[in-house]
Amino acid sequence: ASHKLLLLPGDGIGTEVMAEVTRVIDWLGKRGIAKFETETGLVGGSSYDADKVAITDATMARAQAADAVIFGAVGGPKWADVPYEARPEAGLLRLRKDMALFANLRPAICYPALAEASSLRKEVVEGLDIMIVRELTGGVYFGEPKTITDLGNGQKRAVDTQVYDTYEIERISRVAFDLARKRRNKMTSMEKHNVMKSGVLWKEVVTQVHAREYKDVELEHQLADAGGMQLVRWPKQFDVIVTDNLFGDMLSDIAAMLTGSLGMLPSASLGETDPKTKKRKALYEPVHGSAPDIAGKGMANPIAMIASFVMALRYSFDLQKEADMIDAAIAATLAKGLRTADIKSDGAKIISTSQMGEAIVAELDAL
Amino acid sequence: ASHKLLLLPGDGIGTEVMAEVTRVIDWLGKRGIAKFETETGLVGGSSYDADKVAITDATMARAQAADAVIFGAVGGPKWADVPYEARPEAGLLRLRKDMALFANLRPAICYPALAEASSLRKEVVEGLDIMIVRELTGGVYFGEPKTITDLGNGQKRAVDTQVYDTYEIERISRVAFDLARKRRNKMTSMEKHNVMKSGVLWKEVVTQVHAREYKDVELEHQLADAGGMQLVRWPKQFDVIVTDNLFGDMLSDIAAMLTGSLGMLPSASLGETDPKTKKRKALYEPVHGSAPDIAGKGMANPIAMIASFVMALRYSFDLQKEADMIDAAIAATLAKGLRTADIKSDGAKIISTSQMGEAIVAELDAL
Ligand SMILES: CC(C)[C@H](C(=O)O)[C@@H](O)C(=O)O
Ligand SMILES: CC(C)[C@H](C(=O)O)[C@@H](O)C(=O)O
Repeated sequence: ASHKLLLLPGDGIGTEVMAEVTRVIDWLGKRGIAKFETETGLVGGSSYDADKVAITDATMARAQAADAVIFGAVGGPKWADVPYEARPEAGLLRLRKDMALFANLRPAICYPALAEASSLRKEVVEGLDIMIVRELTGGVYFGEPKTITDLGNGQKRAVDTQVYDTYEIERISRVAFDLARKRRNKMTSMEKHNVMKSGVLWKEVVTQVHAREYKDVELEHQLADAGGMQLVRWPKQFDVIVTDNLFGDMLSDIAAMLTGSLGMLPSASLGETDPKTKKRKALYEPVHGSAPDIAGKGMANPIAMIASFVMALRYSFDLQKEADMIDAAIAATLAKGLRTADIKSDGAKIISTSQMGEAIVAELDAL
Repeated sequence: ASHKLLLLPGDGIGTEVMAEVTRVIDWLGKRGIAKFETETGLVGGSSYDADKVAITDATMARAQAADAVIFGAVGGPKWADVPYEARPEAGLLRLRKDMALFANLRPAICYPALAEASSLRKEVVEGLDIMIVRELTGGVYFGEPKTITDLGNGQKRAVDTQVYDTYEIERISRVAFDLARKRRNKMTSMEKHNVMKSGVLWKEVVTQVHAREYKDVELEHQLADAGGMQLVRWPKQFDVIVTDNLFGDMLSDIAAMLTGSLGMLPSASLGETDPKTKKRKALYEPVHGSAPDIAGKGMANPIAMIASFVMALRYSFDLQKEADMIDAAIAATLAKGLRTADIKSDGAKIISTSQMGEAIVAELDAL
């Protein structure tokens, strides 16, 4: 049976890095290892240019029907002045919300070859391997009211609303506890219960889920501000971190930057598993953005995008061996000293986006 | 004329570090350099223990009447189960709100002697000197509704509300632009306009204030998540950062941790200047918390607390020379290799909280 993928390259370097995923998909197909049927669609600014919306209903329907969505990146200065509802990010937010992709998994791994690319001391980040589990369909991203009101006299009032229900916190903490069990069995929950009611409920529900179902996992609570500090001070104290949509946005970006591997880090956004079909909706995207400053120059690092496809193999298609193969090919390519500009280091050879894709496929050929 | 100070040591190490401020105040008085009249009050857990509230109305009234409030730190596991309204942090939040202390100034400075205490590479933090200006009386901290509702069936719903009005953004950005003018003339505004309506208004208002009143200052906008990344990657790109209450909470803690000088960093929380009296309400507190793990051990670093008092000399009393003197005494003490445990380094001598206070006063005597 072939797996149906919807590729949404998006804007900026999104299209460039997606091309390298296609190369890997082709290789898997030609070798008869795994067969993927791919379709392509528009999202973000490029969708706005074509259709005046950040994603069309037709593309949304194709995303819902796919076995997995592979997403590049959206946004850029070109669309700074489009109406708020049609801004590039709205396409990504609609995909997350309409597909109910509540669980965003963001591994922060320091690739051994790249420890020196970090702004942190080598001993602080070397060997780092943490997993941030971010709630992705709730919180201040989607709560209502979300408005700007004209009060007259040159005054406006902006309102955003953070809303969390018990069941949303339960399901995301289960995802995180399950991951912790397969890793180092430790979970840290981060919120601001000293200031936010959603933090009070968050802490209460995580504590209950732990007591009922996951007593074997070590659970710790940290305030999100203190947690951010601890991430910078000594990130190796963490295994799995679970947090809400907005804190997760900031904390996962910071964790990614710590590793020196920003251009290397993938993410998975998962929905609930259907008890009957055992399938779940899923979208995979790199942690980095559309990088308008380097777009079109063939300089982007495609590894985060390829690694996101590897997460699809693991989480959507249970192709663990194939995933391991590609991971090994990436590691082998880096070990040869081949680098895109973002991860350059002394003695390394700087290559282009497509050369990096070719090099990884060459390693796959050699396996 | 003597200046009226209200000292609120609070909980944990708050009382220990406040004692060292008293030493410096006494010295200024004895030398006839500046005369302060001090009163002391309870706040946080220690206020709850005495009066079942995190701050009494009587103490609030004394804070309102003082020329400046010097605040230690609040909180600790002892009060984990007190009612939400009476939790230790509520005392601090009431002081900020009732005194209308909308502008929170948090310098993040890497003391030369301490660059090696940072988890970041020396070249990344050495010489770092940035100022985070955090809005302190608005946003999700105080917006209504702020509730937990029982929905039945074991489900609850938590709601927090982020509210910003034009005038709140105008006044905080003026504070930040004014500071930038006295520094390196660059200001970076951080929000999430791609997700939050308050971010849209924030960016719009800062842009307008800049165009109307501060064209001479270089203005840059960053998304708060990208800004957090940039803080970790290369913090020296920043001069003044202006941001909202919640982002400011996280970003300022992270910036403080970068410097390796967390136990050294002060903050000022300022109200509006009265056009007639030229006075403004103000509260000064260290960036660090009550550190229950080391409380009562005489190990805490009193420098952040003393430096907060130095900020009071500068911002509330215009005693610049006296402030410079104390800053010099702190630097001289560190230069002699004297350290509290949090900033220990090879070859340094570890001393206690009170020994650090004594050493600083001894340097003042020697000046
Ligand atoms: C593009 C933007 C809407 C998005 C977010 O804020 O979630 C991005 O920062 C991310 O982390 O995926
Ligand atoms: C103690 C707490 C309420 C406070 C805050 O969240 O503002 C603290 O973290 C701070 O940054 O001053």
